[in-house]
Amino acid sequence: MTSPLRLGIAGLGTVGTGVVKIVQNHADLLATRSGRPITITAVSARSKSKDRGVDLSNYAWEDDPVALAKRKDVDVFVELMGGSEGPAKAATEAALAAGKDVVSANKALLAIHGQALAEAAESGGQVIRFEAAVAGGIPVVKALTEGLAGNDILRIMGVMNGSCNYILTRMEDAGLSYQEVFDEANNLGYLEADPELDVGGIDAGHKLALLASIAFGTQVNFDAVDLEGIGSVTIEDIHQAADMGYKIKLLGVAQMSGRGLEQRMAPCLVPDTSPLGQLAGGTNMVVLEGDSVGQIVLRGAGAGEGPTASAVMGDVLDIARGFRLSTFGQPASGLRAARAAHSAIPAPYYLRLQLVDKPGALAKVAKILGEAGISIHRMRQYDHTDDTAPVLIVTHKTTRTALSEAIAAFADTDVVDGTPVALRIEEV
Amino acid sequence: MTSPLRLGIAGLGTVGTGVVKIVQNHADLLATRSGRPITITAVSARSKSKDRGVDLSNYAWEDDPVALAKRKDVDVFVELMGGSEGPAKAATEAALAAGKDVVSANKALLAIHGQALAEAAESGGQVIRFEAAVAGGIPVVKALTEGLAGNDILRIMGVMNGSCNYILTRMEDAGLSYQEVFDEANNLGYLEADPELDVGGIDAGHKLALLASIAFGTQVNFDAVDLEGIGSVTIEDIHQAADMGYKIKLLGVAQMSGRGLEQRMAPCLVPDTSPLGQLAGGTNMVVLEGDSVGQIVLRGAGAGEGPTASAVMGDVLDIARGFRLSTFGQPASGLRAARAAHSAIPAPYYLRLQLVDKPGALAKVAKILGEAGISIHRMRQYDHTDDTAPVLIVTHKTTRTALSEAIAAFADTDVVDGTPVALRIEEV
Repeated sequence: MTSPLRLGIAGLGTVGTGVVKIVQNHADLLATRSGRPITITAVSARSKSKDRGVDLSNYAWEDDPVALAKRKDVDVFVELMGGSEGPAKAATEAALAAGKDVVSANKALLAIHGQALAEAAESGGQVIRFEAAVAGGIPVVKALTEGLAGNDILRIMGVMNGSCNYILTRMEDAGLSYQEVFDEANNLGYLEADPELDVGGIDAGHKLALLASIAFGTQVNFDAVDLEGIGSVTIEDIHQAADMGYKIKLLGVAQMSGRGLEQRMAPCLVPDTSPLGQLAGGTNMVVLEGDSVGQIVLRGAGAGEGPTASAVMGDVLDIARGFRLSTFGQPASGLRAARAAHSAIPAPYYLRLQLVDKPGALAKVAKILGEAGISIHRMRQYDHTDDTAPVLIVTHKTTRTALSEAIAAFADTDVVDGTPVALRIEEV
Repeated sequence: MTSPLRLGIAGLGTVGTGVVKIVQNHADLLATRSGRPITITAVSARSKSKDRGVDLSNYAWEDDPVALAKRKDVDVFVELMGGSEGPAKAATEAALAAGKDVVSANKALLAIHGQALAEAAESGGQVIRFEAAVAGGIPVVKALTEGLAGNDILRIMGVMNGSCNYILTRMEDAGLSYQEVFDEANNLGYLEADPELDVGGIDAGHKLALLASIAFGTQVNFDAVDLEGIGSVTIEDIHQAADMGYKIKLLGVAQMSGRGLEQRMAPCLVPDTSPLGQLAGGTNMVVLEGDSVGQIVLRGAGAGEGPTASAVMGDVLDIARGFRLSTFGQPASGLRAARAAHSAIPAPYYLRLQLVDKPGALAKVAKILGEAGISIHRMRQYDHTDDTAPVLIVTHKTTRTALSEAIAAFADTDVVDGTPVALRIEEV
């Protein structure tokens, strides 16, 4: 046995408490597997007096996470506070400056400041690991950075916000509107204090940007993620997508094309028989596609005390075992600033519009699509309601640009009521 | 850039050729990700003259894999020959004795001689990595050994032989008998030269034994795996299981109980809505259950050139990056020789028997089950065929021992024709 690996933990919420429990309850297991004892020397959180159901009496207490990060008796700074700025950022920077390795669950911090932090870590020979920041307990950062390192990665897809998947699943199961399920989820405490982080796709977008950086060797660039939340998904769309053999998911997709790196986080249709389509409730799923390995699907809990603490401990044990890995799987200095592409990759689309009940109305719609170069794969017109009828169209592959042109042209006619809904159908 | 990592590859079949292609085609990617060039210095195979579609002219040729393993210009011996004895074993031992690290796709060798090889490696400070030996391209050894290292592992389950899953899926889809689909698969070249390795569960049993060793910190013990092949699964069982909401899978399960380590590879019923139940065709799936992480499901190609070569390269890059890990995730000297338990963990069972058409026949069957302490959850009697009628019973949780006693007692009556089929229902 060599010397212990000493953790300083900043943030004692659900995840931090979970990490303390694993370190306390599995001391022998951790030491056997990593070859050295894993200990906690100091902790930091907002309230010292709060009862967290774990014994912290053997650990030094720091009110200031920056002070914790600099302590001489800390080898690894474990950042579980969250937030892209403020104390989390200051303490992470202080830890790196003081020569500490960092294990972080902070997707926002890394998605926004990841490049600078990775450069800071590498200049001092430290590592930053962040398995817990992406898809909770699923070891997807490890699978991508290490297991699939022999592959040219072709595409990443993921359902990485359990709350959104819960809402979409519940809408379908109970036949409720988005607003009804949103309120229900909010009241049950399933959503972040700022729910827009969940339902706006921001949280999931952070995760996608981190995976994309590893996959494509590019500087993490959250600003280039095309974000679209689930607030515009209606129960009608869910039912009608189901009718055609699809499920609607808040799906993240990152893909490199000749036009640049495309990162999308938006509601998409996926086949209901695919693993992504079959994913119900709050579970997460990530799909990794490599030129040699084909398609690898990873599924598990994306949040919660145990799963997220498990991911933190995986990183801690890697460090204890002496594994030294660049933050994004290759030296930060060599990561390219990729050009951002936006919906450059063609796909089939689901289009729902309200057709005004007039002779020749459908012909006008079809003509506009044809002029935009969009061909129709399937179409259904439903019964009238009042003086309009819902029309569903599944297109052959087209670009979002062509589709937007057609939708704009619809507005200049008198046969389409309101704004059509357009959702990408991701071929999985 | 530090010095290159030099590979010596023994075995140039599908997987070996795939590895050569990755090393040649992705030289820059591999060097960027691992921090050093990955090169091949020498290769060995049975036929030097065979055209494999790759250029081997820059590599030294060795007829004898043992000579390859000992070469001074080889850092990592990559063993892709297969077979638990003979050249593969001799060359692996020679490589370790000569101070080389080993990357192996050889499940049979490691499942049978893994403990001795791990001890040999560790005494000299070498590593043996074997991601490619289990579930092809799925990075499951890494997920279990590293990603989930903070967990007490509770259970491992897996569909890890694509050929068997193909056969069972095809039987159901086409309504064909086992023998018909077996012949079809064999003619298409889907099965090993000795098909019993596939359909007898031996190949999948090797993989299960390897994962169990990592999960439970025990010496790999393939002999203790309860093996049952798929040859006894009938199309009637598949249909009737489907009728009750189940699929039949050749499922490996490893689990530690108070009575010891239980390792089973046998046809089982799983709910058709579960990820395992939905797995069709030749794809593999492994389910890992940890006390913190909950259930993690991994899905991907379990065989083939690209996926298996991807797994080999993941291990090679770990070594290039300087990761030094014990073969089974902890020092081999500390692995326990676990007591083998056999079907000690209770489960519900599916029971199919032919009931003779006599008054009171069903009552006799029910009485025998009751006397064995087995209670009935669901029962169905189908229409007579000739003078017997098929009866399906789903029991509540019971042990295999109690069930075997009941089945033996059936034989002493005159109301059960032939031998009943009993399949475990695994709660997933």
